[in-house]
Amino acid sequence: MLVLLKFVNSRWHTRHVGLVPTMGYLHEGHLSLCRRARSECAHVAASIFVNPTQFGPNEDLARYPRDLPRDLRLLEQAGVDLVLTPDPGEMYPPNFQTYVTVEQVTQSLEGAARPGHFRGVATVVAKLFNIFQPDRAYFGQKDAQQVVVIKQMARDLDWALDVIVCPTVREPDGLAMSSRNIYLTPEQRRAATVLYRALNVAKAIWESGQREGEPLRQAMRETLATESLARPEYVSAADPISLDELGIARRGVLLSMAVRIGATRLIDNLFWNDVLLQERLVVR
Amino acid sequence: MLVLLKFVNSRWHTRHVGLVPTMGYLHEGHLSLCRRARSECAHVAASIFVNPTQFGPNEDLARYPRDLPRDLRLLEQAGVDLVLTPDPGEMYPPNFQTYVTVEQVTQSLEGAARPGHFRGVATVVAKLFNIFQPDRAYFGQKDAQQVVVIKQMARDLDWALDVIVCPTVREPDGLAMSSRNIYLTPEQRRAATVLYRALNVAKAIWESGQREGEPLRQAMRETLATESLARPEYVSAADPISLDELGIARRGVLLSMAVRIGATRLIDNLFWNDVLLQERLVVR
Repeated sequence: MLVLLKFVNSRWHTRHVGLVPTMGYLHEGHLSLCRRARSECAHVAASIFVNPTQFGPNEDLARYPRDLPRDLRLLEQAGVDLVLTPDPGEMYPPNFQTYVTVEQVTQSLEGAARPGHFRGVATVVAKLFNIFQPDRAYFGQKDAQQVVVIKQMARDLDWALDVIVCPTVREPDGLAMSSRNIYLTPEQRRAATVLYRALNVAKAIWESGQREGEPLRQAMRETLATESLARPEYVSAADPISLDELGIARRGVLLSMAVRIGATRLIDNLFWNDVLLQERLVVR
Repeated sequence: MLVLLKFVNSRWHTRHVGLVPTMGYLHEGHLSLCRRARSECAHVAASIFVNPTQFGPNEDLARYPRDLPRDLRLLEQAGVDLVLTPDPGEMYPPNFQTYVTVEQVTQSLEGAARPGHFRGVATVVAKLFNIFQPDRAYFGQKDAQQVVVIKQMARDLDWALDVIVCPTVREPDGLAMSSRNIYLTPEQRRAATVLYRALNVAKAIWESGQREGEPLRQAMRETLATESLARPEYVSAADPISLDELGIARRGVLLSMAVRIGATRLIDNLFWNDVLLQERLVVR
């Protein structure tokens, strides 16, 4: 039985609660988070909320894809017990004026490209942490910087929960699953595989022993340039903890990129980091 | 038995927890919060933490008065079960970078006089809410704007707790109790009574039916001017919800002031507001 919450003021005292926050239009990536939560927690909650505060004024908030009936079926099949689907006015009532900001790790990459994005993410995740009081919260590695920001926030503000990061789920041709893939025309969809190919070219160079950042970035840029439909927004080989662009790697690398294919903005990443590669990422 | 926590990563699952956050050097105002919590909660926690992030660079962080042994005795006598006394480095470890900001209601009064003050307050209170997961948190009306900020924050970010505001406790001559009163010389201590006298002059005018803000502010300024040691920093008759300066009162008034007596900065307030006058202030 799936319980649908239409308000957010409930309090849920049960122990061993797993939370999967989503913006809906679910794909196999989201469902892998739900199944992981189902395997680890007595109770699994999910949220479906296209959070307006994490969209910039020229972004795709209004046309972000939605299909609530399908999402609810998928969540029930994945073993989710409870779904919160609030309206924006319930999450951000009149006179709402409190925001959570994470400073250093939001300065680069997506944070630089999307001003205010991570303030919106941190604020809505803080609200969801308080509404659900989960013991474990599940996020996908596809949004690599988001994971770093949420772990930093949870640690800094002392939420007593584990932030658990699950691997990116990919289509057979390597494209990272994303709700935004629906925007792509067939031709653009074929072109979109260039992100993962570029990441893998850099991965091979990394695995050959290269520890300088610039050759990795250059290899990714060159691969992206082979695809005429791809317009790179940024290409990064960064320290996986600070997210600063690498001179020379000391503790792994986060290879990441944002690329426009037509009007659609896609992101993807690969990383090597002993800490992040732990099976479970425990905040404390 | 008083349990002393020296770290902050603990999780406290008990229900009906009351929390009294303090900066220590306790007086009867703090103890009234503890006794109120004791009467309402199964478990009462207090914190003693002179929070560096709420002090400005030219404020009295370094010389803020401290007496932990005395504070612990007083808390035990007031029925407190558990006291958290973290070091600054435990609350703000290296790489700490997450802050909670409340926007509109921090713009005036103390927020205008002390830039960054309420960001520090909101951040440390958010941490304490997460560390203790209280059902009720107790604050004094003496810090009127702080109460408004914390209630706004708790509501906006969905902490499932009640913010309970307790009356200002005063010395027999009317001076609001404050840890900073210890800074006053005997002569300054006598002069400090002018704050409460000024508030009461405005109160009498309010009670005579005056609903415009400026005559109330003027009466307070004139009374403060009779005390040569008093240097007003601000004098306010504000809307008790928005904290905007009053033209004409629609839903009560918050009379408040910050006044320097020598080097010591004192604040005090009185208010009329149907909502705020409720015996218990329930966030939701």
